[in-house]
Amino acid sequence: MRELSEQAIRDIAYGSTVLGAGGGGDPYLGTLAAIHAARQHGPVKLMAAAELADDALVAFPFIVGAPLPFLEKLTIGPELVRVHRGLERLLGRKVSAVMSAEVGGANSSLPMSLAAQLQVPVIDGDLIGRAFPEIQLTVLTLHGIAASPIVIGDEHGNLVMVQAASNQWAERLARATAICFGAICVAIAYPLSGAAAKKLTLHGTISWAEQIGIALRLAREEKRNGLVAVREATGGEVIFSGKIIDVERRTRSGWALGNALLAGLDHDAGREMVVQFQNENLVAVSGGQIVASVPDLITILNAETGAAITTEQLRYGTRVRVLAIACHPIWRTPQGLRLAGPAHWGLEHDYVPITGSFPPADSFSWTVPAKYEEVA
Amino acid sequence: MRELSEQAIRDIAYGSTVLGAGGGGDPYLGTLAAIHAARQHGPVKLMAAAELADDALVAFPFIVGAPLPFLEKLTIGPELVRVHRGLERLLGRKVSAVMSAEVGGANSSLPMSLAAQLQVPVIDGDLIGRAFPEIQLTVLTLHGIAASPIVIGDEHGNLVMVQAASNQWAERLARATAICFGAICVAIAYPLSGAAAKKLTLHGTISWAEQIGIALRLAREEKRNGLVAVREATGGEVIFSGKIIDVERRTRSGWALGNALLAGLDHDAGREMVVQFQNENLVAVSGGQIVASVPDLITILNAETGAAITTEQLRYGTRVRVLAIACHPIWRTPQGLRLAGPAHWGLEHDYVPITGSFPPADSFSWTVPAKYEEVA
Repeated sequence: MRELSEQAIRDIAYGSTVLGAGGGGDPYLGTLAAIHAARQHGPVKLMAAAELADDALVAFPFIVGAPLPFLEKLTIGPELVRVHRGLERLLGRKVSAVMSAEVGGANSSLPMSLAAQLQVPVIDGDLIGRAFPEIQLTVLTLHGIAASPIVIGDEHGNLVMVQAASNQWAERLARATAICFGAICVAIAYPLSGAAAKKLTLHGTISWAEQIGIALRLAREEKRNGLVAVREATGGEVIFSGKIIDVERRTRSGWALGNALLAGLDHDAGREMVVQFQNENLVAVSGGQIVASVPDLITILNAETGAAITTEQLRYGTRVRVLAIACHPIWRTPQGLRLAGPAHWGLEHDYVPITGSFPPADSFSWTVPAKYEEVA
Repeated sequence: MRELSEQAIRDIAYGSTVLGAGGGGDPYLGTLAAIHAARQHGPVKLMAAAELADDALVAFPFIVGAPLPFLEKLTIGPELVRVHRGLERLLGRKVSAVMSAEVGGANSSLPMSLAAQLQVPVIDGDLIGRAFPEIQLTVLTLHGIAASPIVIGDEHGNLVMVQAASNQWAERLARATAICFGAICVAIAYPLSGAAAKKLTLHGTISWAEQIGIALRLAREEKRNGLVAVREATGGEVIFSGKIIDVERRTRSGWALGNALLAGLDHDAGREMVVQFQNENLVAVSGGQIVASVPDLITILNAETGAAITTEQLRYGTRVRVLAIACHPIWRTPQGLRLAGPAHWGLEHDYVPITGSFPPADSFSWTVPAKYEEVA
């Protein structure tokens, strides 16, 4: 267990944008909320999952809804505590630690704000190893663990508690509630024993985001190219160098859909790449070939600073590098691909794994349960 | 307390269509469900509110969503018991009696089905004295009583529990959930102590629906004109005799909106009447004058049988009588009119009360609390 400095909170948030694969929302406001809560209530403590007592109760707070544009609507404080207390009331016991549902984007920082207010530890890990925009897209769904009960709250004091028949139903019902709440709200879900959290969650991913954030910061401070730093910290692979020459966007059922068209530069000169996104980047195609595909992570980085560019921030003329990072091996199993592979996103191609393996560092360990046979 | 015969269950349902003011859905399937449950589990017992113990706990089960078309989707049994048990779990105690949220339409019969399954009494009364299609439109809202917690369930086993910041929010959140559940589902709300139920609910309205149903049945059996029977049983006033010559319908945000145009017959020959509806009949206009208006009840009856015609059943050529029944006095107070008067339905006219008073029978008593001054 260690206390997170304000710098560490910022590094985690900044690194998380890289793991957000273009989505997950901007962690800036979540970071401010976490730092504010830490100043008011005491430091955020980051704890390894291994340190959890077997009979601890862990829960996963997160933002449901549209990313960036509406984040200002949330006060991120009272409503987070209300959903947390609501869950405790439903379960009839205290939640002793919180953990990120996803490591990418704003939801990597959100639990820190709650943890500071309640003075409970944040567990170093998450449920995806990237960002995905639906509640059922977690490793716990693959393990047959229910997302329910889910408690959803807004800034007016409304609380909605969902006990869903499946994690897919949980997603539908939470989404309908979020839309009713004005497109964004906070939720807490997946209550889990310490024993289960130790066994089934992805460990060390918050530290990993921090490493990426530190690498970016040091490069910035030392005026080095941040890109090399990010590549090293993520273990990712640059799959394209180019310039954004067109961004096509449309919104459907609350999703930010679109394509970014890139014209190659340097050794990619003369080639083009299309990155298709639905909140997150889904697939990168060049010369008619799938170069990288969901569930692997595709992140567009600023060519100079190495900073991640979210799908909302894609602008004509920006020089970029496309980074692909291998997803956690569980997403490459038949079960993982059925849940979150190309077909889930309406894509007709088969999954084409990128080379490289994940995680790159041995600072954390992930295991694929025996019942899942890795296919790639 | 008395046991309801199958005939009584049918009479209540049939009489309720008259009090549904064109809406509230068809009680036929709900009646079948209640009779089926009574055969399986034991008789439905109807109890006067006065017989409730002060520390009893009463709750109000109802159908949320579109009326008639989707009713077949519900099994009306397991999901009703599930929402009931869900509410008990939330409150940490047993619900000792159930009561109708509205006396008009399908929701007058629904509690009988649950009461038979659980072998708890149904209280003779409701929360509106007619049908209204939104959760906050009850006398309890006027008394400042929360509809929450509301538990909503579907046939798949999903449960959504709402603790809303206001009864208006409760309506919005329950509606969003119902839409997610495929436009119809069951719910239970407004948990109330026996003491409060005795004081604040509308008493005797189920018996009243039964009286109307009996009058209709006897007229049918004795081949008399049912219209006179209905007029006498309801205390209503026939405001127009005519023939349906046009029905204009549109659907918006799940509402069945429209107008029925009637050409006068008999002493109304040469005149026309327009009845505007939004699920329920809202206003009847003839010769540019408001003849009757929400919150008073406007029900279109078959001219021969006296049977109520719901807005879905309006057909060109049918000979009809338009019956207006005075609403409960609480709806005529400034507070009542603010909650459910013409402006709530987007109508620009002021409320024009019909003559006659409600209730017509002394078999039940309603009181307007002192804090509400009757205006009409």
